Amino acid sequence: MSLDRIMDARSVAIIGASRNPTKRGYQTIRVLLEEQYEGEIFPVNPKEERILGLTCYPSLKEIETAVDLALICTPAKTIPTILEACGEKQVAGAVLLAGGFGETGQAGRELENTIVDVARTHGIRLVGPNTSGMLNLKSNMNLVGLRDAPKGNIALLTQSGNMALTLIMEAKIKSHKGFSYYVGVGNEADIKFHEYLEFFRQDPDTAAILMYVEGMREGRKFLQQAYKTTIEKPVILLKSGRSSTGKRSAGSHTGALAGMSRVAKSALQRAGVLVIENSDELFPVAESLSSLPAIRNNAVAILADGGGHATIAADLLTDHGVRMPELSAKTQEKLRELLPPAASVVNPVDVAGGTDADPSLFADCARVILQDPNVGGLLLVGLFGGYGIRFAEQLTLMEEDAAHQMGKMVRKYKKPVVVHSLYASEKPHPLELLRYYNIPVHDSLDVATKCVASLAEYGNYLHSYHAKTNFVFNWGHKAHPKGAAIICQVRAEGRSALLENEAKALLRHHQAPVSADALAQSADEAADLAEAIQGPVAMKIVSPQILHKSDAGGVKLGLSRKADIRKAYNQIVKNAKAYAPDADIRGVIVAPMADAGVEVIIGTKIDDQFGPVIMYGLGGVMVEILKDVSFRVLPISRLSAKRMTEETKSSPILDGVRGNPPHDRKALIKLLLLCSDIVEAYPEIAEMDLNPVIVHEEGVTIVDARILLKPTESACPI
Amino acid sequence: MSLDRIMDARSVAIIGASRNPTKRGYQTIRVLLEEQYEGEIFPVNPKEERILGLTCYPSLKEIETAVDLALICTPAKTIPTILEACGEKQVAGAVLLAGGFGETGQAGRELENTIVDVARTHGIRLVGPNTSGMLNLKSNMNLVGLRDAPKGNIALLTQSGNMALTLIMEAKIKSHKGFSYYVGVGNEADIKFHEYLEFFRQDPDTAAILMYVEGMREGRKFLQQAYKTTIEKPVILLKSGRSSTGKRSAGSHTGALAGMSRVAKSALQRAGVLVIENSDELFPVAESLSSLPAIRNNAVAILADGGGHATIAADLLTDHGVRMPELSAKTQEKLRELLPPAASVVNPVDVAGGTDADPSLFADCARVILQDPNVGGLLLVGLFGGYGIRFAEQLTLMEEDAAHQMGKMVRKYKKPVVVHSLYASEKPHPLELLRYYNIPVHDSLDVATKCVASLAEYGNYLHSYHAKTNFVFNWGHKAHPKGAAIICQVRAEGRSALLENEAKALLRHHQAPVSADALAQSADEAADLAEAIQGPVAMKIVSPQILHKSDAGGVKLGLSRKADIRKAYNQIVKNAKAYAPDADIRGVIVAPMADAGVEVIIGTKIDDQFGPVIMYGLGGVMVEILKDVSFRVLPISRLSAKRMTEETKSSPILDGVRGNPPHDRKALIKLLLLCSDIVEAYPEIAEMDLNPVIVHEEGVTIVDARILLKPTESACPI
Repeated sequence: MSLDRIMDARSVAIIGASRNPTKRGYQTIRVLLEEQYEGEIFPVNPKEERILGLTCYPSLKEIETAVDLALICTPAKTIPTILEACGEKQVAGAVLLAGGFGETGQAGRELENTIVDVARTHGIRLVGPNTSGMLNLKSNMNLVGLRDAPKGNIALLTQSGNMALTLIMEAKIKSHKGFSYYVGVGNEADIKFHEYLEFFRQDPDTAAILMYVEGMREGRKFLQQAYKTTIEKPVILLKSGRSSTGKRSAGSHTGALAGMSRVAKSALQRAGVLVIENSDELFPVAESLSSLPAIRNNAVAILADGGGHATIAADLLTDHGVRMPELSAKTQEKLRELLPPAASVVNPVDVAGGTDADPSLFADCARVILQDPNVGGLLLVGLFGGYGIRFAEQLTLMEEDAAHQMGKMVRKYKKPVVVHSLYASEKPHPLELLRYYNIPVHDSLDVATKCVASLAEYGNYLHSYHAKTNFVFNWGHKAHPKGAAIICQVRAEGRSALLENEAKALLRHHQAPVSADALAQSADEAADLAEAIQGPVAMKIVSPQILHKSDAGGVKLGLSRKADIRKAYNQIVKNAKAYAPDADIRGVIVAPMADAGVEVIIGTKIDDQFGPVIMYGLGGVMVEILKDVSFRVLPISRLSAKRMTEETKSSPILDGVRGNPPHDRKALIKLLLLCSDIVEAYPEIAEMDLNPVIVHEEGVTIVDARILLKPTESACPI
Repeated sequence: MSLDRIMDARSVAIIGASRNPTKRGYQTIRVLLEEQYEGEIFPVNPKEERILGLTCYPSLKEIETAVDLALICTPAKTIPTILEACGEKQVAGAVLLAGGFGETGQAGRELENTIVDVARTHGIRLVGPNTSGMLNLKSNMNLVGLRDAPKGNIALLTQSGNMALTLIMEAKIKSHKGFSYYVGVGNEADIKFHEYLEFFRQDPDTAAILMYVEGMREGRKFLQQAYKTTIEKPVILLKSGRSSTGKRSAGSHTGALAGMSRVAKSALQRAGVLVIENSDELFPVAESLSSLPAIRNNAVAILADGGGHATIAADLLTDHGVRMPELSAKTQEKLRELLPPAASVVNPVDVAGGTDADPSLFADCARVILQDPNVGGLLLVGLFGGYGIRFAEQLTLMEEDAAHQMGKMVRKYKKPVVVHSLYASEKPHPLELLRYYNIPVHDSLDVATKCVASLAEYGNYLHSYHAKTNFVFNWGHKAHPKGAAIICQVRAEGRSALLENEAKALLRHHQAPVSADALAQSADEAADLAEAIQGPVAMKIVSPQILHKSDAGGVKLGLSRKADIRKAYNQIVKNAKAYAPDADIRGVIVAPMADAGVEVIIGTKIDDQFGPVIMYGLGGVMVEILKDVSFRVLPISRLSAKRMTEETKSSPILDGVRGNPPHDRKALIKLLLLCSDIVEAYPEIAEMDLNPVIVHEEGVTIVDARILLKPTESACPI
């Protein structure tokens, strides 16, 4: 259902309207009147007749015309009844300011469920509860009570009223930009982040979406929506709550924790979202991306009037992974004509005093640089805008000239210019002119470089869009009937863990490279099976009651002689019975010892927020001690699988170290993609662990496999 | 020699004084007059008689009274002659503005050497060249030409005029703080960073020292001076130039590069310097440290009026390693009395609307929190200072009251308070009051948390000062005569690399745990030596011409039988001769195969800036692929050695993984300290590599050792 009637409501009822100026039910009406809301305002309060010159209605049903939206200012416990009334009036949506719901504990959660049920029954959509409200700056529908929020093309979507206030203040003080909408999502009880995102994607007046998130109710749907949105307009997001999560999940170990936070970040980035780490950078990046073209080739030039700033900027851009290519010979030649001999004309360009007498030279340099095909964007750092203040007033005119020229250049060359100026907070006219042309100006080098880096990151994303996945999971797609049968059988036995031989059988049905094992049910059978295998064998107990096979003395390795194998069979079974007297022993796996190679592990699990995720890393110490692993939300594309194998620090080991030959990375990538398919094929799978997998010079071998099913009542869901 | 006569000069001659307002020789005089410099000003120019009302002297010698300092505004090539004249006049120091020296190449470097020679001959100290000048804000000696720099207790020492300008502007716009001195060190041709540091250490009007550094000429002397200084007053430093270094050292591989940059950072931190990574944080941290008490227990409380800011601040403080302990039961109880039921009283404290009607409650909460012995400092985040703007004007009075109270609390409890406010840049009166009380106020959460973290970092340093080294190297101290004799012998043979047996012999003289090797010079001797060793042996070629023993087929491992050992000897010698026909073969080492344990490597080398440094890491893949190593500038304390073994990511392997017992970390620490002593004992050593060292359950064994000497003419320097 579209949110149009809520976001662009043409009439608003204020439930809990008040004549008391300290009450939200008064303040909102006053602000709506002052800011000249284009729709109709209906105060509702049985005890009042008029408020601020408007007729006050005793209840919703007395209002003669249709009501699109209700702003409910009354306490939590009153809300179910009010929503019933909204339903009768066919109100499209309600904004619930009150706290006292899910955020307060069990009783609150139950009340929250109740209001969602009532709303669903009546087809009412809810914003909040526990929200600071919403703003539509096009119709002046101000349901927040904050005056003079600047208007513009950025949609603001946050989970904290104070962060919204921070960002609105920042826009007002430090930019010429503003907002199309603001929504405080509150507890996300009904309308979720991804639904607002879809509305903003479609809104022609929104050019960028700015988000502050502490936690998300439906991570995967958000990723899917972000994937659709970011190709059309940029989404900039700061996610906080790492450390409080830390507290909440005390007891769970750090590796897992850091891992899951990395999952979120990498998934959002794969969906094209610009993930911001520092709150200082959040608005400036949105400012840049809402008004400047993205950088197409990840290549930036720096233009400076002093060494210090240029050095710091070059360091920071390098840290952000942005290239600073040398300028072409032709560009260097042209710059040499413009600048004094001491100038540096490579990159960073340092004017070396060449602009002291005439700062309009900055524009000439900028033009030459932007014409260079190696350059995708320009960062100007230093004193520009302050020459008139610092040296002589008449220089201001030349700076203004330069500002006009640079503003036009951005449009002409479709390459962004970002400006750092010592004088940014003084707001001299040349810098205000730049802002008029949508060129952001910052007094922080850190922020200015981050803006440039984000323009490059977005350009890189758009460039690689074709190689991305859309995060849509076709549950059951590509399932194999025999695989499904194995899961059915396990369920039928009331188990949730597949035995090693069952897990391997399931994998084999998908042509996974599983070691050629067989299950022996007697010592003689074991000896016969071993004979058929070339070389020594490994033997492992199979029993639903014994998950930790080694602990039970249920594993023997490197056996060759028939007598040893028989003995081992009997010993393993004896050990198992001693370990778990009631164990149902299904037999002993006889498997060839794996060929030489690099040990890796692949695991999948279901994340609370994002659903199925996959983990990959080199085995042993690398994963256990160094936590050197790579995570992705499933499904993954070939590109993602490739990057997973490359981004762990131990990745070069696969290429062969100390004279070893390279190992078969292609086969490993194929296996990662197959794991993605298998998890998609069987929605019953909760966890899958392939540990170890051996990567050989040619091919890979899954040596051990474990599959756990989700707890469920249903015997067989497929 | 003290810099007093330069830094506090009572008379300044302006060489190259001018009547042209665009010239530095004019501007400086005008600013000195306008800002009422307390000393005497002597313009010098043979072509002028009066400048700005002052008598202009044809040359220095015509000046009747003594001249402390000369500001030389003329080009590079004129400077040697001018310095001669300064010498005759017994001028104490000269500030050289001109560029065109070492920074421009070989010819410039030679000119720079010339001026240093002239200056030394005449006992003149030089500031610069290639500097923007210096400021003494106590006497208004303004040799920069920048007007109205704010006065205060921070000394500013930079290598970039623009960065100085940035920091001075920032102080002016965003704080109530200012500067005692500014010096642009320029090329550091004569006076070095550490000499200015010593001056500022002694200056009673300087409470903190703020530095921007691109590169240092004498890193070790700076560390020694920093060690002496930071116990008295904080030093805050930003080092840039990572990426340009990257360019310069193209070809050297990334691991080494990152390593050396890490060396600098860790060494500066060990000397108590607060190393800043983001230029935005540089001035604010100096502001905080120049006026607030350090945090004694690394424990901070957050006081907030909204969830978003508190969450972000908690995340950031966690990232910085600052603890946020729970408040005591008593504190929580008192807060509960002050605040509404919905408030959070643990930490972060969230007032949950409790301050809306009376923001002076912030002070009451702050008092209760600061009285808690668990808390070392307070971070207030949110809207404070803006209640009067955002809600109702009369609230401003209550905010002012709170500001007064909090200002006094900092003094009373000797615990710092740092404030983040959305309204910081609006400068409302309550926030200006906080600044009056030396409480910093920032509109950036990132910056405010960094200030708190730095106050904690400095407190931690002061607390652990007793366990630090002073970076003083007593060359030759603890040398062993027999070790010195080995080095003499190597030098006498014209070699710069010790043979394995020589290196091990030297180490043995210092009781290092070297494997019990011996050198065999025949196959029979090898067999006899092996017999004396329990268990299998390793055999390795010894020849000055063969450094890569394995490549030459000069290594055989795990030999036990006499016949095999004889055969191995002959084969090794044969291989060696085939590999290097002219090799001088000194014999074959026969060594016991090392007992089981964890392989580590220890290396030392001489860094250009800091002198001897040591590297430690786990061997094999950990160091080669993962670059998982730890660096320190030598000498190291026991604490540093311990931290080195702990801070590599692979460190837990030493504690025993997968059921292995822990390894002997104590013996490893002892060996690291011994390496520090050995490098100190023999100034001839350029590099020492112990690779591998095996760490056993008890003890360690040095299996292979390599020592390289510095190139030198002298046969034997000891």
